[in-house]
Amino acid sequence: MYGAGDVRVETVPDARLIEPTDALLTITRSCICGSDLWPYRKMAPSETGRRMGHEFIGVVQDVGREVRTVKPGDLVVAPFVWSDGTCVFCRQGLQTSCLHGGGWGSPGVDGGQGEAVRAPQADGTLVALPVGRDDALLSSLLTLSDVMGTGHHAALAARVRPGKIVAVVGDGAVGLCGVIAATRLGAEQIIMLGRHADRIALARDFGATDVVSERGAEAIERVRELTGGLGAHAVLECVGVEQSTVTALGIARAGGAVGRVGLPQDESIPAARESFFKNITIAGGPAPARAYIEELLPDVLEGVIEPGRVFDRVTDLDGVPEGYRAMNARESIKVMIEF
Amino acid sequence: MYGAGDVRVETVPDARLIEPTDALLTITRSCICGSDLWPYRKMAPSETGRRMGHEFIGVVQDVGREVRTVKPGDLVVAPFVWSDGTCVFCRQGLQTSCLHGGGWGSPGVDGGQGEAVRAPQADGTLVALPVGRDDALLSSLLTLSDVMGTGHHAALAARVRPGKIVAVVGDGAVGLCGVIAATRLGAEQIIMLGRHADRIALARDFGATDVVSERGAEAIERVRELTGGLGAHAVLECVGVEQSTVTALGIARAGGAVGRVGLPQDESIPAARESFFKNITIAGGPAPARAYIEELLPDVLEGVIEPGRVFDRVTDLDGVPEGYRAMNARESIKVMIEF
Repeated sequence: MYGAGDVRVETVPDARLIEPTDALLTITRSCICGSDLWPYRKMAPSETGRRMGHEFIGVVQDVGREVRTVKPGDLVVAPFVWSDGTCVFCRQGLQTSCLHGGGWGSPGVDGGQGEAVRAPQADGTLVALPVGRDDALLSSLLTLSDVMGTGHHAALAARVRPGKIVAVVGDGAVGLCGVIAATRLGAEQIIMLGRHADRIALARDFGATDVVSERGAEAIERVRELTGGLGAHAVLECVGVEQSTVTALGIARAGGAVGRVGLPQDESIPAARESFFKNITIAGGPAPARAYIEELLPDVLEGVIEPGRVFDRVTDLDGVPEGYRAMNARESIKVMIEF
Repeated sequence: MYGAGDVRVETVPDARLIEPTDALLTITRSCICGSDLWPYRKMAPSETGRRMGHEFIGVVQDVGREVRTVKPGDLVVAPFVWSDGTCVFCRQGLQTSCLHGGGWGSPGVDGGQGEAVRAPQADGTLVALPVGRDDALLSSLLTLSDVMGTGHHAALAARVRPGKIVAVVGDGAVGLCGVIAATRLGAEQIIMLGRHADRIALARDFGATDVVSERGAEAIERVRELTGGLGAHAVLECVGVEQSTVTALGIARAGGAVGRVGLPQDESIPAARESFFKNITIAGGPAPARAYIEELLPDVLEGVIEPGRVFDRVTDLDGVPEGYRAMNARESIKVMIEF
């Protein structure tokens, strides 16, 4: 990406092993993330450009001499950050804070919207998948890179439990995966805040019991009506802007929790006093997707959850710029890239 | 209080029973709260003034016909809000969000810095104390009205557990009670951020293992040094201003929690992105002191905790204006009023 709206498909030097802990992958499935749309809207023009993509499935081609857990030929999924798997934070399941980890596409590291990547810290990062390259489950498995783990993280941060009333702010792929997660964790009522017919239909399929299409103060009022005047126990904030956060805090009941996974676009969290007086817990952040892959994988393999349904468009590498445009225009929920 | 710096002791109409759920108390011990200092600094001039005081112990003089749990002659402690004890929030122990509760000194309700009060919702609000009027434990029992429960709430919100590293931002009475709470909950290391010799000495007596007297970025650096570069698992934010909140979020380790009990002075919470990327949980609010009285009372009665030591000055009713001045000038940690 060379700046807002400027995505180019270019030939770069081949990915190759550098560290003994690296693996080299050819990518078979990748996708465009809602968070990629922030630079697509805002990024200042850049001479050098920035590698994009942080969600992918690939086949291991080669590994460094210290890699133990994956081998050439393995089909693997990568979470949206790489991590060593051994530091204090990785051991507690917070791989997004790995002391020796980092992000795909950062300087010297390949991006996932491309044909191949060097995967640093392969043992800590990659998870081998017990399926074939053309398995029908691949789209759902691909969501374990980010959006399904992120929706699950929002639900855990918001303390979704059996019997709770849950509200989901944001009808993008993450919000929809948040509905899947809330259903899976036993929520009694799931209120989706959204207004696009296709997304609402999918949310209902995933378990949403109510839909609120109003915005702002009217949305807050409508959620109160749906919750006996008290608000939701657990709110999943899956957007990251001021209005969505004000709404999330406004619809949370006293003593409830907001799980925030939408990348914050502001330097401060609004409604500090309202959330204080209501004793609302604000939790969340980047999801440790790596930790959740093992937890969610069995349900994907058994077809209990089908997060791959958030992909409503498939493209090849040359179609990626158009994929950004379509997602940004909200013509597509999420675009998958097949190689 | 008639405005910033303008506290007057005046004769008002006698407190009396109004509702059948009321109790009438004569007050034997009361005190000035750190939160009373916010209007003392900022309140706009008022023609009618505002009743002050929300922490007190008193003797029941009379009760309405529906009151069952306290009777004339009982010595009782009141939490800093009154509550019915039966609504959905009271039943879950969040009496500060009681659907039929309210604050002392609000219109039509007496304040605790006076000789007598009508206590609404007496059954839900008041707790009878198994001690005499002149018991040496009264000062510690009085802290159950607010500051000890508030320090405990901060510790719970910050998820203090045995073996955890705790930092306390704010060396006022609440911060000092936060140290007591952290010690009581089994913290391994307790870092007090403060700079007043008398408060630091008391914090050490209460269990603080380290003291950081720097401020701002230097304080954050110093806490990092004391915690292996990682920060504290649990941070108790006991001030409520922007700088203290930035410090609290800055010294929390990734995956940690900040328990905020300092009354927020701003409309937003700073460091939204930093706290997001570190997956820090921000929790807390007004403490449900009523819920904690029963939990903390045995430890006070047995002398296991001595929160009453935060009182370093005693006055009578006429000395209250001078008490505000002394606390605001930080000449006193907390002023007790004896009747």
